Amino acid sequence: MLKEMLDNVREKAPLIHNITNYVTVNDCANILLACGGSPIMADDPEDAEEITGICGGLNINIGTLNQRTIPAMLAAGKKSNACGHPVLLDPVGAGASALRTQTANRLMKELKLAVIRGNISEIKTLALGAGTTKGVDADVADTVSEDTLTQTVTFAKEFAGKTGSIIVITGAIDIVADAQVAFAVRNGHSMMSRITGSGCMLSAMMTAYVTANPEDPLKACLAATCAMGLCGEKAFNRLTNHEGTAAFRSHLIDEIYQLDGETLERGAAHELR
Amino acid sequence: MLKEMLDNVREKAPLIHNITNYVTVNDCANILLACGGSPIMADDPEDAEEITGICGGLNINIGTLNQRTIPAMLAAGKKSNACGHPVLLDPVGAGASALRTQTANRLMKELKLAVIRGNISEIKTLALGAGTTKGVDADVADTVSEDTLTQTVTFAKEFAGKTGSIIVITGAIDIVADAQVAFAVRNGHSMMSRITGSGCMLSAMMTAYVTANPEDPLKACLAATCAMGLCGEKAFNRLTNHEGTAAFRSHLIDEIYQLDGETLERGAAHELR
Amino acid sequence: MLKEMLDNVREKAPLIHNITNYVTVNDCANILLACGGSPIMADDPEDAEEITGICGGLNINIGTLNQRTIPAMLAAGKKSNACGHPVLLDPVGAGASALRTQTANRLMKELKLAVIRGNISEIKTLALGAGTTKGVDADVADTVSEDTLTQTVTFAKEFAGKTGSIIVITGAIDIVADAQVAFAVRNGHSMMSRITGSGCMLSAMMTAYVTANPEDPLKACLAATCAMGLCGEKAFNRLTNHEGTAAFRSHLIDEIYQLDGETLERGAAHELR
Repeated sequence: MLKEMLDNVREKAPLIHNITNYVTVNDCANILLACGGSPIMADDPEDAEEITGICGGLNINIGTLNQRTIPAMLAAGKKSNACGHPVLLDPVGAGASALRTQTANRLMKELKLAVIRGNISEIKTLALGAGTTKGVDADVADTVSEDTLTQTVTFAKEFAGKTGSIIVITGAIDIVADAQVAFAVRNGHSMMSRITGSGCMLSAMMTAYVTANPEDPLKACLAATCAMGLCGEKAFNRLTNHEGTAAFRSHLIDEIYQLDGETLERGAAHELR
Repeated sequence: MLKEMLDNVREKAPLIHNITNYVTVNDCANILLACGGSPIMADDPEDAEEITGICGGLNINIGTLNQRTIPAMLAAGKKSNACGHPVLLDPVGAGASALRTQTANRLMKELKLAVIRGNISEIKTLALGAGTTKGVDADVADTVSEDTLTQTVTFAKEFAGKTGSIIVITGAIDIVADAQVAFAVRNGHSMMSRITGSGCMLSAMMTAYVTANPEDPLKACLAATCAMGLCGEKAFNRLTNHEGTAAFRSHLIDEIYQLDGETLERGAAHELR
Repeated sequence: MLKEMLDNVREKAPLIHNITNYVTVNDCANILLACGGSPIMADDPEDAEEITGICGGLNINIGTLNQRTIPAMLAAGKKSNACGHPVLLDPVGAGASALRTQTANRLMKELKLAVIRGNISEIKTLALGAGTTKGVDADVADTVSEDTLTQTVTFAKEFAGKTGSIIVITGAIDIVADAQVAFAVRNGHSMMSRITGSGCMLSAMMTAYVTANPEDPLKACLAATCAMGLCGEKAFNRLTNHEGTAAFRSHLIDEIYQLDGETLERGAAHELR
């Protein structure tokens, strides 16, 4: 079943509009190409709306947001909603500053979001109005572990119900939930947190998966989450003695490029919660 | 003869000002260094004009353009024209949005462009006032193939005659043309379209080639086109079983760094049309 | 003694706010993660000040500065000063344009800078009010060699005395100086100048070192300088026949990730001047 999700991305090659931060934007473009999608970036308010119109999906990432890109996010999001295209929000650093928290809240309020994907601190900030985000990484106190899994799954389902969005919380264990159904994903490797952009890349790729699989967005999100985690494991296993995080990043994109549906199906470690 | 073009870049190490998108800007800087040039980026209107003054050539790329960078492109372009330095335009996404098409047209009208380099959809948009650009990639209907080569060469020469610019159309077959002479280039590998930045990198490198070879800009464009395509082939041939697009991108820059004039001369696959 | 500096970075994992150029920002984030720090980027005036407040140190890099980011640099710098956090200035291209020179001077005047790190042309511009910066690389006439070392050390100490900042001048020989003490560092490899971002990455990493070692910032700067140079040597030694600058960049970040205190202590080539 995850195989079909991946195959649809490769077959349909969805064009994804990304309004994203300038730190990891190149990685986002390359992971989209590697997974079978096609990226375009435009963040001028005048340009963004029209570019969204020719795309299949929209990925909004609020890292390095600024006064010029916020209206572009809103305009493109509304256009995407009007077209019936999926919009994903990656609330990078929500909770770390008022501008980020307020912008994420405004995007949630004014747009219909198909997916919200972040770490637990960011998602808690959006759900509870307050979080303990430390920079762009999840706060240790918030980490999703076996102990807190059940409670976090409940939280994710409730937030999905409240927002009408699929909620994806990534960390040591990932959670993919809508109001009724949740999956816990145990793919991934801790080295993914030692490179910049693991989360941003997943959001970009997930937008392609959701766009190419409109009939089952929850499964599309699950497939993208498993694919990224599995490729993180495979990238780590390929590291030689002298290699480090830069080689790991390169291997990760390579593995996404190489990944086929059978391998994903076999390697995906998810369970219904 | 292509050897001389490459040798001049390495000998003169031209300083190239790039006003370019934030997606592939790092790749543009690194390919310029790899080929023997030297990059500088500045896109604030106040800064761009002065920076252009200390450079030898200017590369304008309209990907992720915005209201702040458009005046910088115009100011830097005019300064570069006044200095008698070559200006290259890469009309990324012309045809995909009004802002991009209008900006490309305005740059063509207000600046003397030594070179315009894009895919066939972008160039058709500029030449015919309308195109079928799908995002930042060429539309399939537009692809330059053996069947359409003769007609596309004629089109390129006519557009070169009309604009006074060298026209470089890249794709499965590349065309490098001025009003009188055109070359078809059959170097390259399809994997170049699976990474972001192949086109942007070529534009940056081509600006260095044209800057270092003012007496023969057409041949300089031909040399840069062959060099990029040949290194794409060599990068692909170096891929091991597990490697994918990220390794390919790294190999491509490495091959440009390693390329010498004799290898370029031997491997270049161009013919006069 | 350098070992302790490195160990403190890994142990404390300082969160570093970077207001930096979009050319090498991804490399800066990845080198910070590789050395044991944690990066965050925010350059909107409204966002930057608050983000700085949750960080331990601030790295200001004026490459691709613009009218929007300059107020962010000032606001974040003042906030960082108020918090007693170290601020590092990397005056990229000072001397190459009035905007860059004036901005660097303004930052020096309005902020208390713990460290100023640049190439000799940039530092001379700041110290003497005029320089011969050619783009973003040091002018050949300015190069620090054995012949000019003594005189440049004196210059660096004097400028450190005048500014109250630690002065780090990087090049073929690096100088790390405060008003009383200076070190010359002979680590490094010329290939570091053939990739973009060597200097920017060092500035980002140095901010982490200074933040994690508040009791001895001069030694922290020395440790970061030796670490980067030593890893440049090690990255070069790992290059295979076919590899070039892209592989070198990747190896460099990998070596920073792999580096431990004992190796740094053993490989550091510094002398008191």
